[in-house]
Amino acid sequence: MFRVDLNCDMGEGFGVYTAGLDNELMKYITSANIACGFHAGDAATIRRTVKMALENDVAIGAHPGLPDLAGFGRRVMAITPEEAYELTVYQLGAVYAFAKSEGGSVAHVKPHGALYNMAAKSRPLADAIAEAIYKVNPSLMLFGLAGSELIHAGEAIGLRTIHEVFADRTYESDGSLTPRGTEGAVIVDPVRAAEQTISMIRDGEVKSRQHHSVILKADTVCVHGDTPGAVENVIRLRAGLEAASISVQKAGV
Amino acid sequence: MFRVDLNCDMGEGFGVYTAGLDNELMKYITSANIACGFHAGDAATIRRTVKMALENDVAIGAHPGLPDLAGFGRRVMAITPEEAYELTVYQLGAVYAFAKSEGGSVAHVKPHGALYNMAAKSRPLADAIAEAIYKVNPSLMLFGLAGSELIHAGEAIGLRTIHEVFADRTYESDGSLTPRGTEGAVIVDPVRAAEQTISMIRDGEVKSRQHHSVILKADTVCVHGDTPGAVENVIRLRAGLEAASISVQKAGV
Amino acid sequence: MFRVDLNCDMGEGFGVYTAGLDNELMKYITSANIACGFHAGDAATIRRTVKMALENDVAIGAHPGLPDLAGFGRRVMAITPEEAYELTVYQLGAVYAFAKSEGGSVAHVKPHGALYNMAAKSRPLADAIAEAIYKVNPSLMLFGLAGSELIHAGEAIGLRTIHEVFADRTYESDGSLTPRGTEGAVIVDPVRAAEQTISMIRDGEVKSRQHHSVILKADTVCVHGDTPGAVENVIRLRAGLEAASISVQKAGV
Amino acid sequence: MFRVDLNCDMGEGFGVYTAGLDNELMKYITSANIACGFHAGDAATIRRTVKMALENDVAIGAHPGLPDLAGFGRRVMAITPEEAYELTVYQLGAVYAFAKSEGGSVAHVKPHGALYNMAAKSRPLADAIAEAIYKVNPSLMLFGLAGSELIHAGEAIGLRTIHEVFADRTYESDGSLTPRGTEGAVIVDPVRAAEQTISMIRDGEVKSRQHHSVILKADTVCVHGDTPGAVENVIRLRAGLEAASISVQKAGV
Repeated sequence: MFRVDLNCDMGEGFGVYTAGLDNELMKYITSANIACGFHAGDAATIRRTVKMALENDVAIGAHPGLPDLAGFGRRVMAITPEEAYELTVYQLGAVYAFAKSEGGSVAHVKPHGALYNMAAKSRPLADAIAEAIYKVNPSLMLFGLAGSELIHAGEAIGLRTIHEVFADRTYESDGSLTPRGTEGAVIVDPVRAAEQTISMIRDGEVKSRQHHSVILKADTVCVHGDTPGAVENVIRLRAGLEAASISVQKAGV
Repeated sequence: MFRVDLNCDMGEGFGVYTAGLDNELMKYITSANIACGFHAGDAATIRRTVKMALENDVAIGAHPGLPDLAGFGRRVMAITPEEAYELTVYQLGAVYAFAKSEGGSVAHVKPHGALYNMAAKSRPLADAIAEAIYKVNPSLMLFGLAGSELIHAGEAIGLRTIHEVFADRTYESDGSLTPRGTEGAVIVDPVRAAEQTISMIRDGEVKSRQHHSVILKADTVCVHGDTPGAVENVIRLRAGLEAASISVQKAGV
Repeated sequence: MFRVDLNCDMGEGFGVYTAGLDNELMKYITSANIACGFHAGDAATIRRTVKMALENDVAIGAHPGLPDLAGFGRRVMAITPEEAYELTVYQLGAVYAFAKSEGGSVAHVKPHGALYNMAAKSRPLADAIAEAIYKVNPSLMLFGLAGSELIHAGEAIGLRTIHEVFADRTYESDGSLTPRGTEGAVIVDPVRAAEQTISMIRDGEVKSRQHHSVILKADTVCVHGDTPGAVENVIRLRAGLEAASISVQKAGV
Repeated sequence: MFRVDLNCDMGEGFGVYTAGLDNELMKYITSANIACGFHAGDAATIRRTVKMALENDVAIGAHPGLPDLAGFGRRVMAITPEEAYELTVYQLGAVYAFAKSEGGSVAHVKPHGALYNMAAKSRPLADAIAEAIYKVNPSLMLFGLAGSELIHAGEAIGLRTIHEVFADRTYESDGSLTPRGTEGAVIVDPVRAAEQTISMIRDGEVKSRQHHSVILKADTVCVHGDTPGAVENVIRLRAGLEAASISVQKAGV
C-alpha cells in the first residue's frame, strides 16, 4: 500500500495583508509549512495558522525564509552558512512557541523559496540548516527537494528526512525543478499533474523535461494555496491519489 | 541571610551595530535579559549572547519588546492585549530555540522598555504577557517592576514572579519609577545607588522622591550596561552588596 | 457653483501583497494619497501608483504614516514632534522622486491613519508635519480633517490647506470622527452617505451623532478603496454629487 | 594643477545606534555619501548628517543600498534591474527632501556596498541605477568605481560621472578591487596608501596586486570613517595630497 503526505505553505500573510486560502486548504492537506516572520508571516498570523492546523489535525511545520519581506524570500541572498543556521533557529523557535502555547507541537521544518533552492544545491548551507534543526530538536523532520543536498545533509546529521515532490512543476534531468521562468515549468493541466504525482509515488521516478527518467522518492507532495483554482486542484489531486490506492496521511507517522 | 539577583539587558545590538559591554558585564551579573529582535537584537546576536551567558553561568532570559527597532522599543504604542500576547510568545520562542541549541534553557522573561512600563500599569496588557509566558512554559519566571500590575498578573496565573528594583533610579510615592525626563530621575552617585539598593533588599522599602516610604520587595536589581562607567558601577555595587552580607545569586534557584 | 475633490488612499500594498482596487478607483477620483513605505507601500508600488495617477489625470499626494507596517500605521505611537517632522520629510521625498522620474509632480500631503488622527488633535505634532511639508516645498497643499489642528497648523505656516470630510463616517459634536469601534461610526447606506456629503459641501455643516450641527468646510471627500463595493460606492457618490450640481475636480486647481 | 575630491560614507547609524566618526571626519572631506534608510540610516540620521554636511561645506550625496539592514547592504541579493531602479529613486528622494528642507541640495549619488559592486560589473543593473538618477535629476553626478560598468552606464545616459579610487585597497589587474576576504586586500600602512593615491591621481594608473599597470581616472578618493584611526588617516592623506600639490576640492565644481 502506497502513502503520501500533502504539504502546503501557509500563514504567508503579514499584518493586514492576507495570502492564500489557508482556511479552505487546511481541510485537504496533511502538513502545513507556516511562515515565520522573515519572508512573510507575523506573530498574529502564526498563531492563527497554528490554531487552524490543530483544528484540522494537520501537522505543524516551520517554514523559515530569507529576511526579505519585500521580495517574499524569493530573491537569492548571499548568506553564509552561519547566517543560515541562525535564521533557521530563530524562526523555528517562533513557530515552536506558538505550537506549544496552543497545545500542539512542531513536526517538521521546510525552508522557503530562495533558501529552499539554495539549500538544495549548496551542501554548506544545507548542513547549516540541518544542524540548526537538529540542535533545537533532533526528532524534527526535515522536508527538502527529493534527492537534494538538503536531504543529504539531514540524513548525515541524523534527522528524519522527507523527500518532497511537486505535482505541478516539471523536472530537469538532474532532478532539480525547471526554473519558474522557463516555458513549461508549471504544469497547468490538473490531470497531467495528478498523473505525474502518482507515477512519482508508485514508480519512484519522473520523466524530465528532456525525457530522461529521474529516479526519486516521493514522501510528500507540495501543493499551492495561492494560485487560481488552488482548492479545486488539491481536492482533485487528493481524489486522484485515493483512486490510485495511495493513502494520504501525515509524513513520518 | 539576604540574597539578590543582578540582571542586565543584553544582546541589544543589531546587525553590524553593537550596544553595551555585554562581554565585560557578564562576569558580574547573574541574569541576562536577551533582546529578541523586535526592539533590538537579531538571530546572530541572540546566539552570541546566549553562548556568553552559558559560559559565565548567567541565567538566560527573554527580553521581548515592541516592534520598533528605530525607537529601541522605548516609544509607547497602542497595542492590544492580544498583540502583547502574540509578540511575547514569538520573541520568547526565538530565545528558547537558541538556548536549546546551545545546550541551555530559558529561565525568565522580562519585557523591555515601553512594554515593561505599559505592563506595569495596565492589567490587561500584564495579563496577556503573563498568559503568553505561562502557555509556552509555566515554569518560567516573570521579572517585573516590584509591586506592579505585571507582578500581580504573573501571580494570578501561577507564574513565579521576581520583583525588580532599580539601583540608579528614584521612585515616586506610588512605587513607580520617576520618569527619565524628570530632574533627579537617575542616581548618578554610585554610593547613593548602593545604599538605596541595600536598603531595598534588607528593609523592603525605599524613600520616594517625595520622601515617603514605599514598601517593596527586591528579588533582583537591574543594572545598566550601556552607560559610561557601567562595568565599574556594577563591580562596585556587587562589592557593596557583599560587604552588606547580601549574597548575589541567580533568581529563583 | 459648488466643487469638490475626491481623494482616496492608494498604493497601500507591500511587496507581493496588494490592497485596494487602485486600478479601478483611479478612474473616478481626482486626488490619490500614495503610501510611502512606512505603514504600507514600497518603491515598486509607489512607482506603479504614480504612473497610474498620471495616466488618469489624478493629482499625486504623499501619504506618510507611522513606521508600523505590521499595524498598517493604525496604532498610536508616542512619537515626538521632531520624529513627526522627520518621517514626513523622508516619506514626502520618496513620493516626490517617483513623481519627478515619471514626469509628474506632488500636489499634496495627507498623513495616514494614527498619524492623521494624532495630528488632528495635537498642535505640536501638527506644526511639525506642516513645517516638514513647508520646508520641502511651500507650494504643496496639506490635506487634513476639516477644522482640525492639522489644518490650523498648515494655515499658520502658510500652506494651502484642504479641508477633508468623510462620506461614510459619522461625526462627533466637536467635529472629530466617531471612532471606528463605536456603533454607527460607519455609514453603510450609500444614499445616506451621499446626502451627508452633499450637505457638507453645499451647506457647510453636518449633523453630529448627537444631533448637533457641526460647521465645517468640505474641500475634499475621502473615499475608500478597500471595502466591499468600493468602486460602486464611488461611482454612485460621484453621480450624486454631479446630480446636485457639484463639480468634481482636483483640489486647489 | 591636479585636484581630487575626498568622499566618505556617512550617516550609517540607525535609531539609537551610531556608526563612524561623522562629526570629526566632516572637517576633512569634501563629499558625504549619506545612507538612505535601506542598508543603514533613518530619517533622523539623514537630517542630522545633511545639516552637518552643510555646516562643513561638504557636498551632499545619496548613498542608496540594498534593503538589508541586518547585513548592512553588504550581502549580494539577486535583484532585478527594475528593482535597482526603484530602490535608487526611492532612496534618492529621501535624501533630496532633507537637503531641500535644510536649505541645501543633492550633488551626487553613490551606491553602497553590494549594490556598488554589483553595479560595477553588471551593465543592466548599472543602466537601471543611472536611469533612476537621470530621471530624478539629470544634473546629478554619479560616483562609481573608476572604469566600471556603472561609470559607463552613467556616461551613456548623459550623467556627469565621477571616477572613484580607493586609498587603502589593492586592485586586481582588471581594475576591480581585491575582495575584502583576500590577504592584502586592505592597505594598512598609511604611507603606502597615500603613495598609491597620489600615483593614481597624477599618473592615472595603479599597480595591481599582480604587478600589472592598471590605467584609471581618479576624480574622487573614498576614505573610511569606521576604522580605527580613521580620522588620523584622513588628515594624513589630505596632508600628503596637498604636499604633492594636489588640491582637495568638491567633485565637479
